[in-house]
Amino acid sequence: MNGSEPLGERRIIRIIQEQLEVMAGLPLGFGDDVSAISIDDGRLAVLKADMLVGKTDIPPGMSVRQAARKAVVMNVSDFAAKGVEPLVILASLGLPRELGEDDVREIGRGLNEAAREYGAYVIGGDTNESSDLIISCSLLGFSEEGRLISRCGAKPGDIVAVTGEFGRTAAGLKILMEGLSAPEEIEEPLREAVLMPKARLREGVALSGTGVVTSSIDSSDGLAWSLHELSDASRVGFTIDSLPIAEEALEFAGIHGLDPWELALYGGEEYELVVTVRPDGWGEAEAAVREAGGSLLRIGVVTEEVRVELRVDGETRPIERRGWEHFKMG
Amino acid sequence: MNGSEPLGERRIIRIIQEQLEVMAGLPLGFGDDVSAISIDDGRLAVLKADMLVGKTDIPPGMSVRQAARKAVVMNVSDFAAKGVEPLVILASLGLPRELGEDDVREIGRGLNEAAREYGAYVIGGDTNESSDLIISCSLLGFSEEGRLISRCGAKPGDIVAVTGEFGRTAAGLKILMEGLSAPEEIEEPLREAVLMPKARLREGVALSGTGVVTSSIDSSDGLAWSLHELSDASRVGFTIDSLPIAEEALEFAGIHGLDPWELALYGGEEYELVVTVRPDGWGEAEAAVREAGGSLLRIGVVTEEVRVELRVDGETRPIERRGWEHFKMG
Repeated sequence: MNGSEPLGERRIIRIIQEQLEVMAGLPLGFGDDVSAISIDDGRLAVLKADMLVGKTDIPPGMSVRQAARKAVVMNVSDFAAKGVEPLVILASLGLPRELGEDDVREIGRGLNEAAREYGAYVIGGDTNESSDLIISCSLLGFSEEGRLISRCGAKPGDIVAVTGEFGRTAAGLKILMEGLSAPEEIEEPLREAVLMPKARLREGVALSGTGVVTSSIDSSDGLAWSLHELSDASRVGFTIDSLPIAEEALEFAGIHGLDPWELALYGGEEYELVVTVRPDGWGEAEAAVREAGGSLLRIGVVTEEVRVELRVDGETRPIERRGWEHFKMG
Repeated sequence: MNGSEPLGERRIIRIIQEQLEVMAGLPLGFGDDVSAISIDDGRLAVLKADMLVGKTDIPPGMSVRQAARKAVVMNVSDFAAKGVEPLVILASLGLPRELGEDDVREIGRGLNEAAREYGAYVIGGDTNESSDLIISCSLLGFSEEGRLISRCGAKPGDIVAVTGEFGRTAAGLKILMEGLSAPEEIEEPLREAVLMPKARLREGVALSGTGVVTSSIDSSDGLAWSLHELSDASRVGFTIDSLPIAEEALEFAGIHGLDPWELALYGGEEYELVVTVRPDGWGEAEAAVREAGGSLLRIGVVTEEVRVELRVDGETRPIERRGWEHFKMG
């Protein structure tokens, strides 16, 4: 490192991890979506902390209230991927000194609304002065051994599935950040996908209840990235053959001459779940998600060969390990 | 608010709190040092999240490794004040892009060293890019109902006590930030008090085991501020009559013509515990702390009249509600 090129997130996490003494008996690896510890017979305390940073996580057009909401949602989404309901939330704030009373009130509202939306409560936190707006949320919930879905259990032959369509947020970000236009009837849903993201908590909890899900992750860094993460953790490959792209994203791509697959695979900021399901449990998994009010969509299959690829119109092309690059403002 | 004057920390917390739906049955109030929830018969999960911000929390001369250590210690100190051992820690990082691999490694080391120093493990976290260095730690531990010492139980007649001497960090900060000089033999301990703070965890856990401590807080924002916080929460007053000022702080004050009381009362960044003890339990409390390897020093008495004052050489003067103003760099 010469210090001029920034270290990547994965590299940073690896360096930090190398310095840490490992606690014995942890149910999940360091790099999984949440952390967990056994607290008594079979019971697990589940923790997650993730930080929203103004410069990289708040696109133009997003209010501070929506930003606070997003800070909660992105953490809840990781709980959703593991099938755990968050119970309580702490919010550590770094506030630029120019923020006024109204902004602070809106941050409080956004935090509370998002917490309540997922059945949790904000019960504490702290505040500091900082140059960027920082909203760092910590979540606590409880689960049981055997119910927590890790990233590492995918087996060849398992079905790969997602909880919704892709591409809306990538298109929405192009509207918000690059000023691209869209017909009125699709502009609103595309913007909303970015500004008011939803975590698939009910779906994740329902899936963990079935016992047929072998691995799970959320798609916050992009579908392609999530597939590669699952591939690394489970040491398997994926062949994706039927990716559900949102109608609005297809239309938007058509208007601007964009590749809809690009929007769907490498978009990011999309909080769907990406799971693998034992083939004999597919019916059960699908029914559980339907009962929870969602839908589980089959997109491909787990392969023995460690390769992540897309099969479309009889052709196979690699899905790159390209993640969602957080937007830099200025 | 006209937006030009920054909101104070207390005001910000109040505004946020007003927006939050309150979870029923919480063992501690929103403003206490930690947050807690009942998880089953009498058992409590205890949580704390506090953020270290480079600009305001890292004085000149503090390495990134020491900063990472401090980010853990300041959270552990709040656990200490409630008598709870932290079990696991998550670290959310905001890293300026110019940080190199060595800095990241040192941050990892500092986090691990501090965690292990207090018997805890760092088991997860995340990393982001930000302009300031941000180290936001979240701690989880467990306690029992009746063992958790809140801020609100001080009663008139209780003894006010602290776990150590005051004034070193205020003097140390004057050396580090204003370049004041000190004889070699006191400069080192004064600098160390700031750069390598210690949390009084063993003392706090020992005190909570006695059942005779009626309220507790740490002194991270300064002794005066902590006394006022306890006074507000317990609706009592304090008369402080024998404040233990560190020898090095007295000498430093003498050399530079400073008021040693000012250093001891309003210094901040000093992680002692400030507790109130039932008079009939004083011997027990003192012995418990001694057995834990520390010392409990009586500094005054709780009064019915809600006034915080210092009685020295027969004269009484008010202790102001003045806190430690975090240092601004540039």
